[in-house]
Amino acid sequence: MRACVMRRGRLEVDDTPDPRPETGQMLVRTLACGICGSDLHFLRHGETMVSMTDEMLPSMGPATMGMAPIDLSRDIVMGHEFCAEVLELGPDTSGPRPGTRVVSVPVLLSSTGLHQLAYNNAYPGGYAQYMVLSAPLALEVPNGLDTRHAALTEPLAVGIHAVARSGATARDGAVVVGCGPVGLAVVAALRAVGVESIVAADLSPTRRAMARTMGAVEAVDPAEEGVVDAWHRLDGRRPLVAFEAVGVPGMIQQMLHDLPSGTRVTVVGVCMEPDRILPFFAIAKELSLHFAMAYGPDEFAGALRALAEGDIDASPMITGTVDLDGVPGAFESLARPDEHVKILVEPAAT
Amino acid sequence: MRACVMRRGRLEVDDTPDPRPETGQMLVRTLACGICGSDLHFLRHGETMVSMTDEMLPSMGPATMGMAPIDLSRDIVMGHEFCAEVLELGPDTSGPRPGTRVVSVPVLLSSTGLHQLAYNNAYPGGYAQYMVLSAPLALEVPNGLDTRHAALTEPLAVGIHAVARSGATARDGAVVVGCGPVGLAVVAALRAVGVESIVAADLSPTRRAMARTMGAVEAVDPAEEGVVDAWHRLDGRRPLVAFEAVGVPGMIQQMLHDLPSGTRVTVVGVCMEPDRILPFFAIAKELSLHFAMAYGPDEFAGALRALAEGDIDASPMITGTVDLDGVPGAFESLARPDEHVKILVEPAAT
Repeated sequence: MRACVMRRGRLEVDDTPDPRPETGQMLVRTLACGICGSDLHFLRHGETMVSMTDEMLPSMGPATMGMAPIDLSRDIVMGHEFCAEVLELGPDTSGPRPGTRVVSVPVLLSSTGLHQLAYNNAYPGGYAQYMVLSAPLALEVPNGLDTRHAALTEPLAVGIHAVARSGATARDGAVVVGCGPVGLAVVAALRAVGVESIVAADLSPTRRAMARTMGAVEAVDPAEEGVVDAWHRLDGRRPLVAFEAVGVPGMIQQMLHDLPSGTRVTVVGVCMEPDRILPFFAIAKELSLHFAMAYGPDEFAGALRALAEGDIDASPMITGTVDLDGVPGAFESLARPDEHVKILVEPAAT
Repeated sequence: MRACVMRRGRLEVDDTPDPRPETGQMLVRTLACGICGSDLHFLRHGETMVSMTDEMLPSMGPATMGMAPIDLSRDIVMGHEFCAEVLELGPDTSGPRPGTRVVSVPVLLSSTGLHQLAYNNAYPGGYAQYMVLSAPLALEVPNGLDTRHAALTEPLAVGIHAVARSGATARDGAVVVGCGPVGLAVVAALRAVGVESIVAADLSPTRRAMARTMGAVEAVDPAEEGVVDAWHRLDGRRPLVAFEAVGVPGMIQQMLHDLPSGTRVTVVGVCMEPDRILPFFAIAKELSLHFAMAYGPDEFAGALRALAEGDIDASPMITGTVDLDGVPGAFESLARPDEHVKILVEPAAT
């Protein structure tokens, strides 16, 4: 099959072996797969991610099940935000019928254990024509939900999880720093739990406009007005929850500096570099930092349901689609934040 | 009166003006006042503390009420962990009768506003023969509680607050990094809420022994065994809460590195310097950092009650007493962590 392969730190479209489903698995055709900021990180800083993960494994306990060692000298096919069509069930496997559209958490069960799909040498992710998925983990896409919208289930689940972790309720106000896909998913998830007073911030006018479309009452350029100042201008009365959705050094300290006493901060931007903080600001103001990354299966299913029932419309964040040959260019484009928010790869179009 | 004055970054014992109580206040004789690690910080890094606090004030909101600007070029009398005897009530003031022993949160109400006692140019703290306190904030020391033990109310309240902020319950296990007065107060407060599986760590054998006396099942030398490793050796099954009670750069990252996924970390050590973290460790393990500093009036009253009723015996942490002339030497001694834990100043002995 054709796939966009990460090979020696670069992306190349090439022929790769067709995956074959074993018992409990199914072969699927990838219909649409979003490009995630983590994929850009991994392409650029794969060695750092792998070495930090290896260093972390002994402390992680049961969470390590899906984290087999990654060999960067061998091919990797990324892509973990997919919607796919079932082609064939493995031997002695029950599951959705061929032709069914499914989404799944990016985890694969096999006879050798759990595997994290997409950051993995053994199993291709969604930047390929075909994948194998675990039948018990696949969720049927409810009739009528657009395939491209269904591919947003995974990033939306990240936002839903971050909001759950923040403990935000309809009584709170919120500031969201960073309006990439993660920040926008947070804005949408905040609206879904009833938070109305949402102020977002991003350097990009395109992304600020999108944050307003997704439900923020205001989106400011942080070079012109601090997000906390804007929140005080527009509300300032409700208890405040804050979200860091940028993931570059300096953002956490900026929030420790600006936020009012007692604020809960959920850090959902993935900063892969060392960062500098002044703990005294957090201590004197008794702030909390809740770091968030993934989501539970229930939150993933909730994201699909929210999309299918129209409770959340995440579709504005889709700004482009490419076939497999367009993936390397899409990665370059996404590195320039004012051009795109979410680009979907459609391998079937290849 | 005689007082130990902070003057141009040094401690000097000198004659200072007697304080006079206004309406709502009372004149007290200081019986015992603990020396806090924050006082050592403030003597050494006063300018940093003042400039960081000034920088933080605009964001803090109502919490700033007690934080009048501090002028380091003028005298300051520190000491905020005191037990005192009422001598005289201000005009038109009702309150405890003269002769009553009291403790109080280190806050003073006056006609000009709220003042943080002890880090303040206008009102002396407990390193002086006399102070003025607010009558409505004073709590009578229940009969029979030793004056020196009553002076531990404030540091114990810090531990009680940190444990409340951690959400720890009897079902949890705990690691406590740092066995100075704050770490020991955390150990005592953990025991008081029913936590039994407590593993502490400190480089000092004296402090490790004290942590065991205060209720830790084990106290390790981190140069020999990591506190998380020790906790896995001794328990490893219960949900874990963690406390950072050292307050020097590098401690937070050490915890992000070592702790298992999902751990709540309460940071109660006051690090005044810039610190370096690798956010990815916290993100991938979905850790939480809850920064804690002070306590509420209810927690302060709860600390006094726990001491008076014998629920918590904090007295082992008292390792020395000095008169006012002994304060400068006590500060030097406390900077060497294996010599002392808590030294009480007894100005009446001067």
